[in-house]
Amino acid sequence: MSTGPATDRVRVRRAPGRAVYDEQAVHDILDAGMVCHLGYVVDGQPYVVPTLYGRDGRRLVLHGSSASRALLTGSTLPVCVTVTHLDGLILARSLFNHSANYRSVVVIGQAKVVGEQRDKEAALRVLTEHLVPGRWEEARTPTDKELRATAVLQLDLAECSAKVRTGPPNDDEDDLRLDVWAGEVPIELVARRPVADPGLTPGIGVPASIARWVPGIERHEGRR
Amino acid sequence: MSTGPATDRVRVRRAPGRAVYDEQAVHDILDAGMVCHLGYVVDGQPYVVPTLYGRDGRRLVLHGSSASRALLTGSTLPVCVTVTHLDGLILARSLFNHSANYRSVVVIGQAKVVGEQRDKEAALRVLTEHLVPGRWEEARTPTDKELRATAVLQLDLAECSAKVRTGPPNDDEDDLRLDVWAGEVPIELVARRPVADPGLTPGIGVPASIARWVPGIERHEGRR
Repeated sequence: MSTGPATDRVRVRRAPGRAVYDEQAVHDILDAGMVCHLGYVVDGQPYVVPTLYGRDGRRLVLHGSSASRALLTGSTLPVCVTVTHLDGLILARSLFNHSANYRSVVVIGQAKVVGEQRDKEAALRVLTEHLVPGRWEEARTPTDKELRATAVLQLDLAECSAKVRTGPPNDDEDDLRLDVWAGEVPIELVARRPVADPGLTPGIGVPASIARWVPGIERHEGRR
Repeated sequence: MSTGPATDRVRVRRAPGRAVYDEQAVHDILDAGMVCHLGYVVDGQPYVVPTLYGRDGRRLVLHGSSASRALLTGSTLPVCVTVTHLDGLILARSLFNHSANYRSVVVIGQAKVVGEQRDKEAALRVLTEHLVPGRWEEARTPTDKELRATAVLQLDLAECSAKVRTGPPNDDEDDLRLDVWAGEVPIELVARRPVADPGLTPGIGVPASIARWVPGIERHEGRR
């Protein structure tokens, strides 16, 4: 069902059977995430920093403060943004076939600094609504001074690819009779019961944004 | 309590109050993780790929297959390895002060390809035992052919730093009286009940390695 990669630079070489180039599948993986890993280069040395992001149609917006020293030299920057969900550990009968179930997206391109105040506010709204839908309307919106103090990057989703592994272990035929347990330990990112700020004004209840919660994250009461 | 950064390249510039250079704290964050994001550079373009890793004292070992095309040109490669735990979303009264609680480690340096079969096997053992302690003794060990087919990288922990944010929102004084809920939504990575391989020989029970489980991951029965 997948179309091919947009460019050869994002063609999946390792385990190409796990490659996904379908746009909707890429968007679904991005929409289920909260933290991306942003890679950039300074003097030939790669740096990878975690940051929050959101998807605005066919581009990503991300908090760019950590990469700002790299951005001082120009208005665009070659970057790679990767989003990964670990879905399970795969325990095979052989150690060689141990693996993980996961979904990941790799996006490469030129990140642009968002300069205009209005564009910056729009990007922050996308980012906020991606993480906690409905939150933008609940909290105090940014002042001009706050917008100036925020670095926002945008990156087109033109060059991207996804990799997905699902299912049980792939053991070699000869190993199937071994007296070794094989299977998956599913792994999930879950949200726990919200913890109010110690200084919260009494009487302010948990807002709708949290009750609805983030797509892809199970609302889970936990054992607290 | 922290000592300073090993080099200026790993000095935390953004929010330096969150910087941690203490070796034990760095090790604890690394030991609690399973997936790292490996950054490397090809023709000036950064790439960031998720991969499994383990810690062997003062170095990391990681599955290097995805980076192998970059490694074909030499025996070492400038890389950045980043491990991130998202611990919570911070909802402040102002959108500007929204944030996340997290622990992350950034390691930079020259990754080396592990070439000797014996070293490769030792590294794979570290990686396996990091993810699922005890598993190495339970499953079939790698053959020479399998070891040849596995790319393993090692990276010294000489140049690294950590960043940690904990606690409630940091709202501006003037915002404290706003009629807006503020607090944290804790987030956790949890393991669910193991799912046996459909072809598992009847009578083979869940092994000790899974019962003990991975450090940093709560064993959680969930609602399945």
